[in-house]
Amino acid sequence: MASSGSQTKTRGNHSGHFVQPANPNVATMPEDVLYHLSLSTSTHDLPAMFGDVKFVCVGGSPTRMEAFAKYMAKELGLDHPGAEYPNICAGTDRYAMFKVGPVLSVSHGIGIPSTSVMLHEVIKLLYHARCSDVTVIRIGTSGGIGLEPGSVVVTQQAVDASFSPMFEQMVLGKRVVQRTDLDQELAKELMQCATDLPEFPTVLAKTMCTSDFYEGQGRLDGALCSYTEKDKQDYLRAAHAAGIRNIEMESSVLAAMCSACGIPVAVVCVTLLNRLDGDQVSSPHDVLVKYQQRPQRLVSHFIKKSLSTVW
Amino acid sequence: MASSGSQTKTRGNHSGHFVQPANPNVATMPEDVLYHLSLSTSTHDLPAMFGDVKFVCVGGSPTRMEAFAKYMAKELGLDHPGAEYPNICAGTDRYAMFKVGPVLSVSHGIGIPSTSVMLHEVIKLLYHARCSDVTVIRIGTSGGIGLEPGSVVVTQQAVDASFSPMFEQMVLGKRVVQRTDLDQELAKELMQCATDLPEFPTVLAKTMCTSDFYEGQGRLDGALCSYTEKDKQDYLRAAHAAGIRNIEMESSVLAAMCSACGIPVAVVCVTLLNRLDGDQVSSPHDVLVKYQQRPQRLVSHFIKKSLSTVW
Repeated sequence: MASSGSQTKTRGNHSGHFVQPANPNVATMPEDVLYHLSLSTSTHDLPAMFGDVKFVCVGGSPTRMEAFAKYMAKELGLDHPGAEYPNICAGTDRYAMFKVGPVLSVSHGIGIPSTSVMLHEVIKLLYHARCSDVTVIRIGTSGGIGLEPGSVVVTQQAVDASFSPMFEQMVLGKRVVQRTDLDQELAKELMQCATDLPEFPTVLAKTMCTSDFYEGQGRLDGALCSYTEKDKQDYLRAAHAAGIRNIEMESSVLAAMCSACGIPVAVVCVTLLNRLDGDQVSSPHDVLVKYQQRPQRLVSHFIKKSLSTVW
Repeated sequence: MASSGSQTKTRGNHSGHFVQPANPNVATMPEDVLYHLSLSTSTHDLPAMFGDVKFVCVGGSPTRMEAFAKYMAKELGLDHPGAEYPNICAGTDRYAMFKVGPVLSVSHGIGIPSTSVMLHEVIKLLYHARCSDVTVIRIGTSGGIGLEPGSVVVTQQAVDASFSPMFEQMVLGKRVVQRTDLDQELAKELMQCATDLPEFPTVLAKTMCTSDFYEGQGRLDGALCSYTEKDKQDYLRAAHAAGIRNIEMESSVLAAMCSACGIPVAVVCVTLLNRLDGDQVSSPHDVLVKYQQRPQRLVSHFIKKSLSTVW
C-alpha cells in the first residue's frame, strides 16, 4: 500500500499510478460481472469506455450526481449542442453513473454498506479499464456541529461514533479495524481552491461517520429514542470539542477502501443544518438545493485547476 | 414492547393495535418532516393518504417495489383501466413508495443504514396516519448457502456475521445490542402459504445479515480480499452448520426496529446463487428477474389470504 505522501506525489507528477485492487484474484478471473453496476468485462469494453477517467466523484443521490455531471460538462466546455450524458448503469436501479470527459459521477445511496458495494465494483472497473492517476472525491450532504447551515466541510479525518479514526468491519465473522485517513495534500489543495470561492464558508475539520441517521447521530426525532435532550447535547458538544464539525454516513468506508487500494480520496460535504440548534432538516427546498451545489462548485473548481496545471 | 405472541394475536384478531414509535418525543412535535421521504405532517394529510395501510412491503430496488405494487393491484383486482400508482416520494430520489389499497410498497436501498433511515420515517408515517394492525414484510434477494438458486427463504431468525441473533448499533458513541427476533407466527403462516405454491422451493431458516457484500460475505471477487478460498469455504460451511441458509444485508435492522415498536415483521428472500459454488451473480437477466418474482408471489398470496380470512 502506498503512503499518503507517495500517492500525492504520484498524482502531482502524473506518473502513471494504475488503479490496483487489493485482491490478487481479480487479475485471474475469466470474467468479472460488476453486478450492481450492470457492467461486465465480457459484455463491455471497459478500457474504451472508462480508460481516460481521472476523477471519480461520488454522492448519495442519483439525481444530484446527474446534475453534477451536467454541471461539469458546462464547466469543462463539453456541453456542445446534442451532447448527452446518459446513465451508464441504466441496466440497474441500484446506482447511477455518468461520464463527462475525465470525470465519472457515481451515486452511492445512503450509508457504509451501500457505498462499499459501489466502491468495490468501481475500483475493479477502474482496474479493468486500466485507469491511472485517479482521485476519488465524495460530494455530499451532512449535519453540521456549530457551523452556519450551508457551510462546506473538507474532511481532515473521518472518525467513528466514538470519535476514533477507525473503520470497523466484520470479515469472516471477525472484527477487522482499518484506519480512516484521507489524503492530506488533496485536502489542502481543496482548501486552497476554497479561498477562490469566498461566497460560502469552507472549513477543514474532522467528520464523524455513523451507521444511522437518527439514534446513531443523537437525534431526538426518530421512531426510536432512548436518551434525553441533555444526553444528546453532551454528545454533540463532546464531538465538537474533539474537532468534529459535521456528521454523515459514508466517509469512513471511502477513506479505508481507497487508502487500501492506494487511491487518493477526499470528502467534501455541505452542512444542511446546525445540529446544536435542532434535528429536523426543515429549510425550504430551494435553500437546500442551493446548499447542495456548494461542494459541486468547489470540486468543479478543483478539477478545472488540476486539469489546467497538473495533468 | 409487545411479545411476539401478543403481536400475532393482535394481528389475527384485528383488534386495533395502533403503530406507536418507541419515542415519546414524536407525539409532541409541532411538525414532523420525514425528510428522506419528502413528506411532512404540515404539508400532507397523512391519515387520509395512509390511514388504511395494513401491509408494508419493503425491498432494495425501487423498480422492483414499483413492479410489486402493480402486481398487487392486479392480484387485488384494483388494476381497473386508468388506475395509476405513482411514486408517493417523487419529491426525493432517496426512496420510492407506492400504495395499492391496504398495501404500501417501499424501497430501502442497500444495507442496514439505508434501511434504518427508511424505517424510522415509515414507522413515524404509520403513527401520524393512525394506522393499526400493520405487518411489515421484506421481499428481497440474497445469496444462498447450500440451496438451489431460485429457492425462497422465509427467515426464522436474523443473525449477524458471527451467527448471533444480535443487532449492534452505536448510540451516543456507545455500543447497544438488540435482539433480532422475527414474528414466528407470521413466518409459520408464510410457510403455510408456500405449500400452496409448489412451483418453487421455500424453506424456513436462519438468515445472516452483513454490512458488506464482498469481504463481509466471504467473497473472493471484491476489490479487497484478505483470505483464501479455504477460509471462505470454512466460514460458509460453519454458517450452514449453524442453520443459516441465506445471506443478505437488511434483515437484522428490520427485526430489531419493528420489534422495538411492536410491529410484526417477516423477511422473505429469494437466493440468486449458491455461495458454496461461487461468488459472482452471473445468471442471465431473465432468470434473475423470474427468481425475484418468487417472494412477491408468496407475499401476494399471503396478503390475499389474510384479507379474505382475517381482516
